[in-house]
Amino acid sequence: MGQTLTEKILSAHLVEGEMVKGSEIGIRIDQTLTQDATGTMAYLEFEAMGVPRVKTERSVAYIDHNTLQNGFENADDHRFIGSVCKKHGIYFSRPGNGICHQVHLERFGIPGKTLIGSDSHTPTGGGIGMIAIGAGGMDVAVAMGGGTYYITCPKVVKVNLTGKLQPWVAAKDVILEVLKRLSVKGGVGKVIEYCGEGVKTLSVPERATITNMGAELGATTSIFPSDEITHEFLKAQGREDAYTPLCADADAVYDEEVNIDLSKLEPLAACPHSPDNVKSVSELSGMKIDQVCIGSCTNSSLLDMMKVAHILKGKTVNPDVSLAIAPGSKQVLNMLANNGALAIMIDAGARILESACGPCIGMGQSPNSKGISLRTFNRNFEGRSGTKDGQIYLVSPETAAISALTGVFTDPRTLGDAADITLPEKFTINDNMIVPPADEKDMDSIEVLRGPNIKPFPVSEPLAETIDAKCSLKVGDNITTDHIMPAGAKILPLRSNIPKISEFCFAVCDEKFHDRALELGKSIIVGGSNYGQGSSREHAALAPLYLGVKAVIVKSFARIHMANLINAGIVPLTFANESDYDKIDQMDELKIENIGKQIANGKVIKVTNVTKGFDFEVNADLSDRQKEMLYAGGLLNYTKQNS
Amino acid sequence: MGQTLTEKILSAHLVEGEMVKGSEIGIRIDQTLTQDATGTMAYLEFEAMGVPRVKTERSVAYIDHNTLQNGFENADDHRFIGSVCKKHGIYFSRPGNGICHQVHLERFGIPGKTLIGSDSHTPTGGGIGMIAIGAGGMDVAVAMGGGTYYITCPKVVKVNLTGKLQPWVAAKDVILEVLKRLSVKGGVGKVIEYCGEGVKTLSVPERATITNMGAELGATTSIFPSDEITHEFLKAQGREDAYTPLCADADAVYDEEVNIDLSKLEPLAACPHSPDNVKSVSELSGMKIDQVCIGSCTNSSLLDMMKVAHILKGKTVNPDVSLAIAPGSKQVLNMLANNGALAIMIDAGARILESACGPCIGMGQSPNSKGISLRTFNRNFEGRSGTKDGQIYLVSPETAAISALTGVFTDPRTLGDAADITLPEKFTINDNMIVPPADEKDMDSIEVLRGPNIKPFPVSEPLAETIDAKCSLKVGDNITTDHIMPAGAKILPLRSNIPKISEFCFAVCDEKFHDRALELGKSIIVGGSNYGQGSSREHAALAPLYLGVKAVIVKSFARIHMANLINAGIVPLTFANESDYDKIDQMDELKIENIGKQIANGKVIKVTNVTKGFDFEVNADLSDRQKEMLYAGGLLNYTKQNS
Repeated sequence: MGQTLTEKILSAHLVEGEMVKGSEIGIRIDQTLTQDATGTMAYLEFEAMGVPRVKTERSVAYIDHNTLQNGFENADDHRFIGSVCKKHGIYFSRPGNGICHQVHLERFGIPGKTLIGSDSHTPTGGGIGMIAIGAGGMDVAVAMGGGTYYITCPKVVKVNLTGKLQPWVAAKDVILEVLKRLSVKGGVGKVIEYCGEGVKTLSVPERATITNMGAELGATTSIFPSDEITHEFLKAQGREDAYTPLCADADAVYDEEVNIDLSKLEPLAACPHSPDNVKSVSELSGMKIDQVCIGSCTNSSLLDMMKVAHILKGKTVNPDVSLAIAPGSKQVLNMLANNGALAIMIDAGARILESACGPCIGMGQSPNSKGISLRTFNRNFEGRSGTKDGQIYLVSPETAAISALTGVFTDPRTLGDAADITLPEKFTINDNMIVPPADEKDMDSIEVLRGPNIKPFPVSEPLAETIDAKCSLKVGDNITTDHIMPAGAKILPLRSNIPKISEFCFAVCDEKFHDRALELGKSIIVGGSNYGQGSSREHAALAPLYLGVKAVIVKSFARIHMANLINAGIVPLTFANESDYDKIDQMDELKIENIGKQIANGKVIKVTNVTKGFDFEVNADLSDRQKEMLYAGGLLNYTKQNS
Repeated sequence: MGQTLTEKILSAHLVEGEMVKGSEIGIRIDQTLTQDATGTMAYLEFEAMGVPRVKTERSVAYIDHNTLQNGFENADDHRFIGSVCKKHGIYFSRPGNGICHQVHLERFGIPGKTLIGSDSHTPTGGGIGMIAIGAGGMDVAVAMGGGTYYITCPKVVKVNLTGKLQPWVAAKDVILEVLKRLSVKGGVGKVIEYCGEGVKTLSVPERATITNMGAELGATTSIFPSDEITHEFLKAQGREDAYTPLCADADAVYDEEVNIDLSKLEPLAACPHSPDNVKSVSELSGMKIDQVCIGSCTNSSLLDMMKVAHILKGKTVNPDVSLAIAPGSKQVLNMLANNGALAIMIDAGARILESACGPCIGMGQSPNSKGISLRTFNRNFEGRSGTKDGQIYLVSPETAAISALTGVFTDPRTLGDAADITLPEKFTINDNMIVPPADEKDMDSIEVLRGPNIKPFPVSEPLAETIDAKCSLKVGDNITTDHIMPAGAKILPLRSNIPKISEFCFAVCDEKFHDRALELGKSIIVGGSNYGQGSSREHAALAPLYLGVKAVIVKSFARIHMANLINAGIVPLTFANESDYDKIDQMDELKIENIGKQIANGKVIKVTNVTKGFDFEVNADLSDRQKEMLYAGGLLNYTKQNS
């Protein structure tokens, strides 16, 4: 039986488990990337592991999130990351050098390699045939230390592309079509693999747009084959050596199949407030707009920008529209500055922003109240733009640019004949803003620069024989990671400072939780069902760890948060009988004797409510690897023990 | 007796008073400008005056301060200003079009005209021979309504320039030399007039750098003659018609004289934390630096940028230095994009920021903790960069650029031969981001767009016959405008919302003041000496106005705040006997009967402390114009009555 491309790359990297769909497999990671908003914590974790030099083939740290720098914290973080990189063998892409995924694709991505990145849009690398997966910072730290990365062996969905995009229909419209069909939950536990004759009609940047936004399907990742087009791209980047042709076997068996005729697609838009709320641009045509933002890791390539410049040439942005453009990398910006396209954009009235994530992550350019903003980005969640009632539509650069001129939603097909825009034979290469690490022999002389906001990673200890602790907090159902560890402009700059950020832990539920937990020294949290739903932020486990939380007993867990608790060495337990939840009050003393032995012996664990004088049962549904992690006191200790 | 250039222009615009130094004169204002951080309030005030169309020759609103847009407030403000402009006859320079002073110089400034702007660096216009003065928003609103602008008739200081700047010594070094000699208080009550043979060696952008930063002398304004060089500049801007030759009479008599031999100057730097703390760059040579920022209304002209590009060409920014460059206007940015200079900067690793004030006003690019930052800006006050312990040095673009490459303070004269950089014969002109106002006949159809954060200007009422109110707050000596109305990132976005911003009024002194004052409905504030020192922010009077403060009784006032209180219709009174201060407690009921008549009759006013049962005397030291303003209930009402 033939293999899918996904299976080929995964099995070539398999170090634990078997390629059985739905089971846990461990894979070797060739490359890692981080961005600065998650990177400081990843590198603090890497430091805590005590591994002197990264063991990956290539690890790169990018600065692209906190580039506005309102306050000292961001510049301190940039310096911290830069110095850690120099010391420990990581390449450092300086602020201004561009968005991690765009730069990684240009300068580092290699077909057939595995990449994990502490950013959910890491699947961009699938555009050149990588297995590129978004992961938590601690997973990235472990991979840098040479540790295995664990995933559920994914199902593989074949997206069979036929035909060719019509003029002014874009790669963005392809992924919007996929989102429309599969929904934001449609990719969970799956890899989306693009195949078929239509693949040959798409350039690497176009493919990368599609795999990038595949993250919105909830997919593990998305991937394109590596073919002659990939070859040409790598050659133009001066990296011909990195090329390997890769594709699925002709007789590969897929778990699902989706057919898309590219020639039938039309310009689409994801309407507020979900990337799968897709309508055609022609349906929306004529709706007045307030803002257009072009850029982000989804649509900031040279190709995207050249199309935008073509549309803007000699025109003026509509007087009622603010148009902001952030080219994706220094390479892109430099080439636009050299070939006249940037001058065209400026002349038309575009506001040129630094090459960085910017407005896509709510870093600036928040639209006006109730403002309708067309963005070439990948997410339009409510409030993400920084304007609570902002109405964000996700569109292609082509739709964005023409609408910026007309002031209303406009179908770019009204532009008529296609523009003749192709990738250059040679990209302008100047990697002077990517600082290579110091030689290993010099690493001891390199001082890691820590600003006052950068605190060491909290220490976790091996599992105690007995957990005897008060319930520091009792919460209800559907607690999200935003309840546990809120985000936002006030709290984001504190992400390198677990003691400080912990002051906001559960503050939306109970302002006194922080003080109470610290006073108790150690404690247990009790909650309802679907505890820890929402984002994957590991701070929602690290802040409780810092505050002395030893176990969390709930009716049920959201999957990623449970994994994060285990990574942090906090025991996740579920009520055997949900009615026991009602019998526990905040500040009850709960005792779990011989907890290590109980976990080792099976799923059922006995807990005593010392205050109320009764016993109850909870379940510990853990793999052997997870048990070992808990014994060790979390993933970092576990990795140190096993390295 | 001959006249100075200052006297010529002022007397040509005199509408009230006599040209007697130290006395109050009223002048006609030809042009106004606003920026967005002060502009929203200025236009709310203009609206409150009820004048349909501006009566100036030219009024322009610029968006250059709040361009990062973290939150809906900024975009709402931009739209509000844009719509007010359209309706009321004001030109609107859109976000991205550049810094007000740079754009005004390029596109609107006219030698011999008067300009007031709600930004302290309005004296930039002096670079082409305007009398250009920074003023409060209400003053600008009144001038737009055709009202007279009042200043103290200034002394005139002659700065006699001889010789010619040596290669790599810059206009910035000239004004730093003046600051070194005269100090930040040296210009108070004076106009600095540049004369002498050396003037001919300086281009308009260089002259504008000097007059711009003349604001740091505390001067009323600074001015250069309008000569052949001015003529060439205006011609290159396609505005030859605007040219008039202007200079002082040969026998003009000056109040003071300063002699500067340009050929003797060397590169200078203003050290932390004052623009007059000037040392030579050679003294500082070799000091390690962390950041360089190039731009701001002081040094963001095409000439400045071309010099920077010349120095950066083919080089790479030092790996330990973050270099940010914000060209001053769309015109400058566009020309840099067209002539290759922008590509040079990008290639060298510069972070290109939007054409706006940016880091100069602490909007982004805060340096790292204790970071040493070289900036081509005009102010280096402690904390202004957004990093409390940041060490900011003010330098020329030349010093900034070379130091960004070396990573240490570097004298640009080490570059050797001078670069041959001159202004172009023709600037690239495209005013498509300056939106002209609608025709007067169409003004009624234009809706002013108000976001939820934009509230009407608070209503002030004509002076009551009797003020009978409790003392809502008693404070001590040296209360600053930062006590009365704090600034900062949290409060700045509220500047269009007096009700909301008033919640922070006096919060640093007494958190309950806001609620108490609102509950009392009307009240009186009692304070010590030097009340209202610090910045000129008019919110420090408008918030008390909104909160019902009718009078302020103190031991003594800071000059500008007292003027702002009168503008707001709040009666400023000083204790005749300072010991009476001690006899009043917060919440005492104070009664001033027949206050209008008492003010009309003379300086001494009787106040009764109803609670404690005694009378005391206070002084009302007011000009007739100020009395009239108080009777009317402030400057806006006064202007409405008299228009």
